[in-house]
Amino acid sequence: MKNFILKGDIAYSENKDKIKTIEQGYLVCEDGICKGAFEKLPKKYEEFPLIDCGEKLIIPGMTDLHTHAPQYACRGFAMDLELLEWLEAYAFPQEARYASLEYADQAYDVLVKDLKKSFTTRAVFFGTLHKEATTLLMDKLEDSGIVTYVGRVSMDRNGGMNLQETSVEKSIADTRDWLQSIEGRYNRTKPILTPRFIPSCSDKVMANLGEIAESQNVRIQSHLSENPSEIEWVKDLVPASSCYANAYEIFGCMGSPEAPAIMAHCVYSDQAEMEIMKKHGAYVAHCADSNMNLSSGIAPATKFLEYGLNMGLGSDIAGGTSLNMMDAIIASIKASKLYWRLIDSNSRILTFEQAFFLATAGGGSYFGKVGAFEDGFDFDALVLDDSETLSPGGLSIRDRLERMCYDSGKCVVAKKFVVGQEIALG
Amino acid sequence: MKNFILKGDIAYSENKDKIKTIEQGYLVCEDGICKGAFEKLPKKYEEFPLIDCGEKLIIPGMTDLHTHAPQYACRGFAMDLELLEWLEAYAFPQEARYASLEYADQAYDVLVKDLKKSFTTRAVFFGTLHKEATTLLMDKLEDSGIVTYVGRVSMDRNGGMNLQETSVEKSIADTRDWLQSIEGRYNRTKPILTPRFIPSCSDKVMANLGEIAESQNVRIQSHLSENPSEIEWVKDLVPASSCYANAYEIFGCMGSPEAPAIMAHCVYSDQAEMEIMKKHGAYVAHCADSNMNLSSGIAPATKFLEYGLNMGLGSDIAGGTSLNMMDAIIASIKASKLYWRLIDSNSRILTFEQAFFLATAGGGSYFGKVGAFEDGFDFDALVLDDSETLSPGGLSIRDRLERMCYDSGKCVVAKKFVVGQEIALG
Repeated sequence: MKNFILKGDIAYSENKDKIKTIEQGYLVCEDGICKGAFEKLPKKYEEFPLIDCGEKLIIPGMTDLHTHAPQYACRGFAMDLELLEWLEAYAFPQEARYASLEYADQAYDVLVKDLKKSFTTRAVFFGTLHKEATTLLMDKLEDSGIVTYVGRVSMDRNGGMNLQETSVEKSIADTRDWLQSIEGRYNRTKPILTPRFIPSCSDKVMANLGEIAESQNVRIQSHLSENPSEIEWVKDLVPASSCYANAYEIFGCMGSPEAPAIMAHCVYSDQAEMEIMKKHGAYVAHCADSNMNLSSGIAPATKFLEYGLNMGLGSDIAGGTSLNMMDAIIASIKASKLYWRLIDSNSRILTFEQAFFLATAGGGSYFGKVGAFEDGFDFDALVLDDSETLSPGGLSIRDRLERMCYDSGKCVVAKKFVVGQEIALG
Repeated sequence: MKNFILKGDIAYSENKDKIKTIEQGYLVCEDGICKGAFEKLPKKYEEFPLIDCGEKLIIPGMTDLHTHAPQYACRGFAMDLELLEWLEAYAFPQEARYASLEYADQAYDVLVKDLKKSFTTRAVFFGTLHKEATTLLMDKLEDSGIVTYVGRVSMDRNGGMNLQETSVEKSIADTRDWLQSIEGRYNRTKPILTPRFIPSCSDKVMANLGEIAESQNVRIQSHLSENPSEIEWVKDLVPASSCYANAYEIFGCMGSPEAPAIMAHCVYSDQAEMEIMKKHGAYVAHCADSNMNLSSGIAPATKFLEYGLNMGLGSDIAGGTSLNMMDAIIASIKASKLYWRLIDSNSRILTFEQAFFLATAGGGSYFGKVGAFEDGFDFDALVLDDSETLSPGGLSIRDRLERMCYDSGKCVVAKKFVVGQEIALG
């Protein structure tokens, strides 16, 4: 069905500070594109078939701007270490298993099945360094209907015996071969260059990725200023850099406003890093849940917003423990409250409006016109059953939305559309 | 059915640092009492009917040591203020609605329905100041099968026009009348004296509650050291007190090891308050989620544990937003990590073992031999379906348990028993 209308209780971000709601409104899809949300159905759409969603909520799909596909299999346990020790003890041994395509097949099946049922309609993934397993992941994601960027991970140092490219040349060749092998293969699945982080990539590999990004117009994602020990290490590894963000800049890995980089975490990013991020149009992937689980700290999310940085939320599996983007919304609000209480009493608290914006239109903008119900946006929509979270007396649509996010385990995805195509949830 | 056996994958806290697991073990119930969890079924129980739970997990029921029943109707939205302003703007107006028994009937129906489906088998509730509505709540809880303490709230000052007892005498009479009216009425529902907190209760009312506690052997619950402004206020209100806990002590409201008080929050409790709590055998109700939502801060939970205080977890609806005690487990772990990172790098991080203990045996001990599967404990058990959170290759029982808590929205309560009685979940 190319043209249709969803009728129900509609909510979406009009801007970062305002959620627009329409009671029993009409959301129009034409050829996969949203034509707007209306209180009264415009005459020209009266012939479109109407799907009556009753009292259900209709909101934009959510974007997960940073997550590690292979780590889904080890999510939610062994959360007792800080970043660098955790990577070595748990994440790297898990990722090494994806040398087996059979394991990758099973594990990625579970991930993609859960992703389809989730609130996520767009996502940006780290894979592993394995070309075949990463391509297999991309095949499965393409079939799912979810729109994604996926990165084969570059890492030619400090990964240990079982998870490290064997030479600079091998790393460079694997990236080149992987990009060639998937050229023209997908409609909704794009490759993204993925240096794990500075400690994992030699100068030569970093510089090579910067060159590919520039010459082939491919985007880049990585990690930035997540943990104090990591930041110290990066200073040692790139002594010429003025800060961690500048280290990426030196190698041409900070992207451009036309092909923006995603930098996950930015827990310790100061004014200098914010300026570099802004100059390059880079996106902050704010992963508050992961930053608590790995004892990293709290990123100054409201400062980033006020400074006008591009930003979205990331589940950061398996530093984060669930694909649930409503949980990511709430984690980011809670974290900002503790930031205010414990770090900077002059900072502002992230409002629900702002956090919801980040999970929808904020992160969505990385994909283009995505994450709101304005005319011309891709038609990414969730139809949500919140009947298990209601109260006597009733609630406004806005308050139903907020409560649903706070008690998301009780919220059921009834229907999900990506670029107008309905996703099979089962 | 009085005697029976559950067979499945069993886990419970052997002590605060160790979770005992038994693969395909046998959990024996005799007359509502647990006779132990066994790898091999003892001969003497072979005649008991066996309920085969397959691959499901069997764990002790959870205790919610602090929560506000009337605020369930306003949970999960308007989380934009600190404690004192939040009470005035949202919580008090909501509680005032329970003057209507019709409203109370509807709202408490929703609460009790959700409570039955939850991981909670024991809970300690604040009601409102309304005698009738509080008794109605107790009637519904008695019918539910969940074992609870419920308090009519005493508050004769600073509640505003609509939520305040009209005089000291009225407050005292209402407590006395309420206690008399429910005497002998319930099997599993007990009254608990509930001065809201020092700012809500005049000296005379506090002293009267202390006297009733002593003379009638009734327990007390209240709030302690949640928020800096609240603590300042208490200092002004009880100038003779050396600290907030001492203010309760002065009025005889700190309980005794035989009839311990529950003090919710203790975010800012220092060594002096810890000593008072320990002397009286008081329980800390640790409410990490609420303390984030109301920007209160982080309670030093591992310090309390190391000092040997009694402690459990509270959902603290509606500072907290969900009855889900697995979420409370995870919130307490995350909070302790940020406490370490941002407040005291000498503090220890709460382990999963410890947080699980707090939600089961730690809080459960307030009710007696509750919260573990030792011989002689009340048979409170949850049978949990975690099939939606599994991974290729399988996980140990302990890791399944941890993951379930981190992704609790996907965990389904299949069966629930309290003192051997199966609770209807539907």
